Amino acid sequence: MQGYRGRALELLKSISAEVGDRIKMEKAERIYEGLLMPRTELGDPEHIVVKLDSGYNLGVKVDKNTKISKIGKGKRPKMGMPPTEFKPDPEKPDITIVGTGGTIASRIDYRTGAVHPAFSTQEIYNAVPELADIANIKTVVASNVLSENMTPELWTKIAETVAEELNQGADGVVVAHGTDTMGYTGAALSFMLKNLTKPVVLVGSQRSSDRPSSDASLNLIGAVTVARSDLAGVYVVMHGSTEDEFCLIHRGTKVRKCHTSRRDAFQTVNEIPIGEVREGEISLFQEVERRSEGKVKVDSKFEEKVALVKTYPNIQSDIIEDLLDQDYKGIVLEGTGLGHTPEFLYSGIEKAIERGVPVVMTSQCLWGRVNMRVYSTGRDLLQLGVIPGEDMLPEAAYVKLMWVLSHAKDLEEVRELMLENIAGEITSRSRPDIFLKPILPEG
Amino acid sequence: MQGYRGRALELLKSISAEVGDRIKMEKAERIYEGLLMPRTELGDPEHIVVKLDSGYNLGVKVDKNTKISKIGKGKRPKMGMPPTEFKPDPEKPDITIVGTGGTIASRIDYRTGAVHPAFSTQEIYNAVPELADIANIKTVVASNVLSENMTPELWTKIAETVAEELNQGADGVVVAHGTDTMGYTGAALSFMLKNLTKPVVLVGSQRSSDRPSSDASLNLIGAVTVARSDLAGVYVVMHGSTEDEFCLIHRGTKVRKCHTSRRDAFQTVNEIPIGEVREGEISLFQEVERRSEGKVKVDSKFEEKVALVKTYPNIQSDIIEDLLDQDYKGIVLEGTGLGHTPEFLYSGIEKAIERGVPVVMTSQCLWGRVNMRVYSTGRDLLQLGVIPGEDMLPEAAYVKLMWVLSHAKDLEEVRELMLENIAGEITSRSRPDIFLKPILPEG
Repeated sequence: MQGYRGRALELLKSISAEVGDRIKMEKAERIYEGLLMPRTELGDPEHIVVKLDSGYNLGVKVDKNTKISKIGKGKRPKMGMPPTEFKPDPEKPDITIVGTGGTIASRIDYRTGAVHPAFSTQEIYNAVPELADIANIKTVVASNVLSENMTPELWTKIAETVAEELNQGADGVVVAHGTDTMGYTGAALSFMLKNLTKPVVLVGSQRSSDRPSSDASLNLIGAVTVARSDLAGVYVVMHGSTEDEFCLIHRGTKVRKCHTSRRDAFQTVNEIPIGEVREGEISLFQEVERRSEGKVKVDSKFEEKVALVKTYPNIQSDIIEDLLDQDYKGIVLEGTGLGHTPEFLYSGIEKAIERGVPVVMTSQCLWGRVNMRVYSTGRDLLQLGVIPGEDMLPEAAYVKLMWVLSHAKDLEEVRELMLENIAGEITSRSRPDIFLKPILPEG
Repeated sequence: MQGYRGRALELLKSISAEVGDRIKMEKAERIYEGLLMPRTELGDPEHIVVKLDSGYNLGVKVDKNTKISKIGKGKRPKMGMPPTEFKPDPEKPDITIVGTGGTIASRIDYRTGAVHPAFSTQEIYNAVPELADIANIKTVVASNVLSENMTPELWTKIAETVAEELNQGADGVVVAHGTDTMGYTGAALSFMLKNLTKPVVLVGSQRSSDRPSSDASLNLIGAVTVARSDLAGVYVVMHGSTEDEFCLIHRGTKVRKCHTSRRDAFQTVNEIPIGEVREGEISLFQEVERRSEGKVKVDSKFEEKVALVKTYPNIQSDIIEDLLDQDYKGIVLEGTGLGHTPEFLYSGIEKAIERGVPVVMTSQCLWGRVNMRVYSTGRDLLQLGVIPGEDMLPEAAYVKLMWVLSHAKDLEEVRELMLENIAGEITSRSRPDIFLKPILPEG
């Protein structure tokens, strides 16, 4: 009973069905009949996949009212049976899923973006059969690394692949990416993709080996739903709760992974999420760019010698000075509170700025906005020439500084660009209600 | 009408009262009569302070039912009038407030821990008159720096001051500290104070100059309430919401400042808060150590050459190698996801461990637990000898490694101690519900 589990497996066991058998399912007055197909390890526990007589694979969602019966004993299909030819439906939008790599040998692993060499349209449909109802899926591979090993070079490769697909007619693109650095890649694509008239949606899975159920299906369906919508821009679509209820849509420059393992690890910081996808429907929480016409361009010049430095009590200037010795061209500090560092760091910061190396301040609080005019420490740092990072995430500021450094002619222009909202990374005014709620015993 | 504002100021204006006038207030069938006293800039908008005929200063909370009248015209007291001699009430617990420093010239600024040279008991009572009802307050000054400039040396000084006060009879100690690095100091005191049989409570204020109202009063009252309670251990007490409703009690090793400016910036991470203080009453959400007998000891050996390094895509080994060249003795990584770093960092990590420099992994997700056995990257890092930091906050792991390095004889003992829960910094098992809730439009 390859790949089946949960309710689907119980139903199949109840009729002693095996892969290849001809089965019939009755549900809400509709009848589905076909050959029982195997599922990949990604299979959710509620779908049974049958090959219809048309040759088309269909995933039928089973619930407690589903009646199932075995019509005939079939031949077990050969392992690795040749995929059915997929016929695109001209009524449906064309979505390209871009794989970004990985080494795990399973078909597709959305945590790592890992892609099996045979990463094919049919395999995607087998894993998440619901996708066939909403889009014609095409799959391409852009890179082949674990997400922690992403580099600006690979960001460029992904951006170029995305642009090529969109410019060749895809209605939207989904980027399957490991979750570890998805926020960084989201920011990178946001700065690289110019005149982005269609949706680009990063998606991943928090599935880990100790969990029987995967969040990949709901996330992928949510991502494709957003990719075929009338939005434009770079978004991250991931679970909005720990249940398989809905996905949240996050802006690519305002999202970070805030939990090591929960399905709803991805959180929008310093604004409300863009919206949600629930049962196939998108609800927007804020107004964003809409789909339009025009070719997407890739502006991928990135200065790689940028460092992100979290400060802490007793951090010393040697940390900064070593970066200067190594010829780093820009430094993003993750300071404390409203944007402060120990005074021990001043001499290093001063040296950096004297050498034309910009120093940008963000806050390790993550929520809130840098405001360096309130206390003497902040004013001292402004005096030294530190650029206040507004309400940018440290991760977004890091990626942005890489992009800005290769586009500005001098330190003054670096400052101007860092203070300008280029890709939604800075909100003009903080909403005071945007924060996290603590979990207390009363709920 | 020095220091008055809000409802209190309105009431006083309605009777044209001036400081020094004899006034009478009637509230809930009780009558308070005395000389109207000035308030410091910390005064909340709802208390009027009168000097009773007993010489005792009393803060009367006024509400819409409070009747006020002027009994007689008084002499305006001289500015900087000599503080009334404070008579300790033997019925009340003795609490010491330890100032930790700062340069701002106001009486006391709880954000920075800034302490006016005249930081006196009477000034504390003037600022927060409610304190007189719950404790005999004594004030001492331990250090005089902005919290961003805290060092292990100053942590030691604070720990020694705290221990001295407790061992000389104080029932509890409140440490007034700047908020920027309060989490780090909370962790430091947690590791330094041994046989801690009484409560030690860090408190601060998120007040910033653009806000008319201060959170200092509620926080200080909450902190003193916890300091006089039957708890033992190091806690942080700060606002639990943006209103002046209640304070949360956080464990010193599990709390971080998560917002640059909100009153409820301090959040417990990876466990539920210890409890709350609401209207003078403590409710505990989890069982903790209780007050007992015995002298507190200070174990303040700290290895200062420890670095905290946040990783990011494209971080290179030169960052680690520079630390080794600078003779750093320990490194805490803030990796991605379950505890990963780019493979570009492996050679640096390997060199560090070969030289006997421990490398501890934490996660920049902040919430959740490091688990390096799930993916190949994690297993590679374990193979190199990286110590998995469980669910420790990076900040707490940084402070802990400083402490552990000066107590362990070799790398193996460093590993054992880092994996052992010494001061509540590691929970044995993650509660899956401990996370933040996103703020969505529907609330």
